[in-house]
Amino acid sequence: MSTPEQANSTDAAKRRAAVWAASQVEDGMKVGLGTGSTSALVIEEVGRRVAEGLRITAIATSEASQKQALGLKIPMSDFAHLPQLDLTIDGADEVQEGTLYLIKGHGGALLREKIVAIASKKLIIAVDPRKLVKTLGAVFTLPVEIVPFGFETTMRRLKDLGFDCELRMNDDGKPFVTDGQHYIAHCKLPQVGFDAKQAAEKLKATVGVVEHGLFLGMASKVVIGGPEGIQVLEAAR
Amino acid sequence: MSTPEQANSTDAAKRRAAVWAASQVEDGMKVGLGTGSTSALVIEEVGRRVAEGLRITAIATSEASQKQALGLKIPMSDFAHLPQLDLTIDGADEVQEGTLYLIKGHGGALLREKIVAIASKKLIIAVDPRKLVKTLGAVFTLPVEIVPFGFETTMRRLKDLGFDCELRMNDDGKPFVTDGQHYIAHCKLPQVGFDAKQAAEKLKATVGVVEHGLFLGMASKVVIGGPEGIQVLEAAR
Repeated sequence: MSTPEQANSTDAAKRRAAVWAASQVEDGMKVGLGTGSTSALVIEEVGRRVAEGLRITAIATSEASQKQALGLKIPMSDFAHLPQLDLTIDGADEVQEGTLYLIKGHGGALLREKIVAIASKKLIIAVDPRKLVKTLGAVFTLPVEIVPFGFETTMRRLKDLGFDCELRMNDDGKPFVTDGQHYIAHCKLPQVGFDAKQAAEKLKATVGVVEHGLFLGMASKVVIGGPEGIQVLEAAR
Repeated sequence: MSTPEQANSTDAAKRRAAVWAASQVEDGMKVGLGTGSTSALVIEEVGRRVAEGLRITAIATSEASQKQALGLKIPMSDFAHLPQLDLTIDGADEVQEGTLYLIKGHGGALLREKIVAIASKKLIIAVDPRKLVKTLGAVFTLPVEIVPFGFETTMRRLKDLGFDCELRMNDDGKPFVTDGQHYIAHCKLPQVGFDAKQAAEKLKATVGVVEHGLFLGMASKVVIGGPEGIQVLEAAR
């Protein structure tokens, strides 16, 4: 549990990261808007800049972000009209130091987040310092989006591959359903000898798996808000 | 266009294949039931045997097959109760001579068909002789099941990978939607130098692709009905 003081300092850190990320949006850009608490701050700041005259068109990664953006009068579009985006700003559950590999999807929107990210020339990730880890899976499980039909057999096959997964449930005891009408399995990652690339390939190759929350080689920059400022990490290319 | 005589001979061929495939179901088996015109004949024959006393439990690959099976009083179950199946019988759009590689999914049920097939110890494919080809894609396109969100960008990336795809549309001009709430892209396969395994890997690895209709190394036996009998091809193991 965090104290109110810690919560305030995390909020302030997220806001600093969000404001810097939003400052990277330039006039005329096609922008992807992420999902989650930091992304909500990004959308708020982008909305403020749009009200001041910034001209952009955006696509959101979730119904919730779409609603927030529309409320702030950010001009929203879709992939029929914007086949490619200039920049997507999103949050992450974990960022691995050095590689900038990410775990994403605890907000329940990993599939749309990945589709939007892969359609973007650049992906900027805004986080608070708690999200930075040495090993992926140190704090969070990995969300894996799976097809509801036969999910029991899919989870059985994931287990055979070495992924120890549990279905994400709602408070009413029913499985959580994503915007895309899929289930989410939360999988523990081994903390020793974990090969993220190999795991990503294995997971996506599994029949019944739609997508997973490992975002590898996708983040261009990660901005980390802190108590006194921000830190920007860039991907080695 | 086929003449009434040709249609009759195809129907008879399908029925011969279906009856033989259904004869492979043994008492006490857990059985997967496929989708399509030949599978409908299989289900009819399995239903006849159940009425005569055959005891099985089955899972269907589509709402349509589920309905037909229930109408014939075949005891139906689900993956919560049957994590593994003994045998699945299904049709195919194309069967490649020699490899027994398949194209499946023109009935619109490839995702469920693949999930059921992979949960089965054996997969028997029942077809008429027109389905046998030297090269996959000779007659049919390859169905690829994709996520509706951002399908335009997914199809663009498929094109970059060398797959020339068109979205399957309904007569009302709207995209066809699968039982799993996805779209289907029909992709032309190159007829020279096509590497089925590589194509299957590339397709499944694509963000936005849920599953594809290449079933490689999955069929245990293929039964082909003909004008005077059946032919059974077995996979080299």
